[in-house]
Amino acid sequence: MPAHPAPTLEDVAARAGVSRATASRVVNGDPRVREAARVAVNAAVTELSYRPNRAARRLVTRAADSIAVVVPESDERVFSDPFFSGTLRGVTRALGSLPMQVVLVMGNPDDGDHRMERYLRGGHTDGAIVVSHHQNDNLWRVLAETQLPSVFLGRPYAAEARAPYVDVDNAAGAALAARHLIERGCRRVGTVTGPLDMSAGQDRLRGWQETLEAAGLETDLVEHGDFTAAGGAEATQRLLERCPDLDGLFAASDQMAVAAIGELGVAGRRVPDDVAVVGYDDSAAATMSRPALTTVVNPISEMASRAVDLLLRVMDGEVVEPAILPTGLVVRESA
Amino acid sequence: MPAHPAPTLEDVAARAGVSRATASRVVNGDPRVREAARVAVNAAVTELSYRPNRAARRLVTRAADSIAVVVPESDERVFSDPFFSGTLRGVTRALGSLPMQVVLVMGNPDDGDHRMERYLRGGHTDGAIVVSHHQNDNLWRVLAETQLPSVFLGRPYAAEARAPYVDVDNAAGAALAARHLIERGCRRVGTVTGPLDMSAGQDRLRGWQETLEAAGLETDLVEHGDFTAAGGAEATQRLLERCPDLDGLFAASDQMAVAAIGELGVAGRRVPDDVAVVGYDDSAAATMSRPALTTVVNPISEMASRAVDLLLRVMDGEVVEPAILPTGLVVRESA
Repeated sequence: MPAHPAPTLEDVAARAGVSRATASRVVNGDPRVREAARVAVNAAVTELSYRPNRAARRLVTRAADSIAVVVPESDERVFSDPFFSGTLRGVTRALGSLPMQVVLVMGNPDDGDHRMERYLRGGHTDGAIVVSHHQNDNLWRVLAETQLPSVFLGRPYAAEARAPYVDVDNAAGAALAARHLIERGCRRVGTVTGPLDMSAGQDRLRGWQETLEAAGLETDLVEHGDFTAAGGAEATQRLLERCPDLDGLFAASDQMAVAAIGELGVAGRRVPDDVAVVGYDDSAAATMSRPALTTVVNPISEMASRAVDLLLRVMDGEVVEPAILPTGLVVRESA
Repeated sequence: MPAHPAPTLEDVAARAGVSRATASRVVNGDPRVREAARVAVNAAVTELSYRPNRAARRLVTRAADSIAVVVPESDERVFSDPFFSGTLRGVTRALGSLPMQVVLVMGNPDDGDHRMERYLRGGHTDGAIVVSHHQNDNLWRVLAETQLPSVFLGRPYAAEARAPYVDVDNAAGAALAARHLIERGCRRVGTVTGPLDMSAGQDRLRGWQETLEAAGLETDLVEHGDFTAAGGAEATQRLLERCPDLDGLFAASDQMAVAAIGELGVAGRRVPDDVAVVGYDDSAAATMSRPALTTVVNPISEMASRAVDLLLRVMDGEVVEPAILPTGLVVRESA
């Protein structure tokens, strides 16, 4: 007689009449589960003599009791861009009552000493959420080697990276921005890009480009920024030198868009009458800007929450699919 | 014949003709040492057959390769106050080329699950620098129990705490501010305090109070703030309700002082003509404020650097004394 196969988490979920995710939560002690589901799952665990697998046990025993938010950027940059504080807040909230400490790990992963790499390899954390990953930072490879459960917030740059990730459709968001400018009647439409060694920078440029091409407009008014206000201001100056009668501008971050509005004002161009401006992020800066910024929604807090969900499932031994969240355009005054 | 006593780091330093701190740096592989000193220390190590002690070896083998900057505050607060980014930058710079990752550990140490405490007890970091410690967060006790090498940036609140710390003389700084207001001729001088469950909040209030008392002025115009702009604005409103002809104000942080200037403007009081305002921090906000802020110097970057120095010495097994840095007043336009 063959040995009875060990019951799986799927078996527990089926017996309890709940989803696999709910069963996983109960097994892992996550309190965010309805009481009825908890009772049903615990009963099924007992009836089937289910034993959580190694990865799940690792979570239950909580080897390190911490989740690292890994940001391959300087601390200067991390503290000046509200994207990062929003992400960190989202991760902390999404962990909710799970008793895990969030630790923020910043810096250049390519320093000669491999500080970050050695830290991540050291087993000092149970999982990592990587934010603001760049082409050359090598993080997906390091994390794959360490087998540290990890999720990228923003698609990894390398096509061969197999890391799970959460993202928005950045190209679709940029297309919304470009289409809005075209529909307003803009014909000389420029863009200030994000860093082109990041998938978000690439995708937003592509969405802008494809939309202009489809409308039969020129796509040469491209200047590179780096998501920061200073970078956005300089790129806008270069655009205005090349095309003084620019009438539409898509900046790939709100910080750059607000800086662009400032530069346009210095150059005597009114927003939106002379130049319509669309940003990207729908951050607090968008509402505080004068004129208030028309911008593409970047659902930071929802992305952070989904990243935590995915990470907990990876820690539980699941193979997960990337999650792509929808985006949208918020029309205010600047375009 | 008695056994030859094991040579100490002091013996090595004496033989090499360098300070103990320099000897410690060489032994611990810190590259920030003159070449001649390095050669002399290494020669002394060989001649004396010196073996680093356990704490020093722990640094050399780098159990976790990381230093935690521990901030018992919400991430919201940490990201909105430039004090924290300045501190983190200072710590990172002071570590220089020492191959240690800085990890930022934020949150409420008194959550029911003791996330932070369990993380600090877990051996996932080689040392801790505690920033913005409050009366009830219990951190000095937790750290004393774990024997994790740690240094407080800002004197621990509890007088019985034996933790090493770096601080400025906050009372002396506040006294400079109060004296400046009195010398300008202010007679109805209020203060917006910091959190009074922090030593910095207490000391700045005391320095203001003692200086006013010595000048024979009333010391009842005290309203409690929390170092934030919102807290500063509300406290200023309360002060103005109680004393509409207030003519001098000491706010215990620049963020509160800038907010106070805004509130005074709303109330139709000119700064400095009607009300002279002094802040505390000498942050970037002080120079950007209109009028520019007269303020007390808080040498964040130097404090961070001294905290790292002390921590490395504690990790090396040394017993260290608190370091108190000098402060000063920067006179600009607001008073």
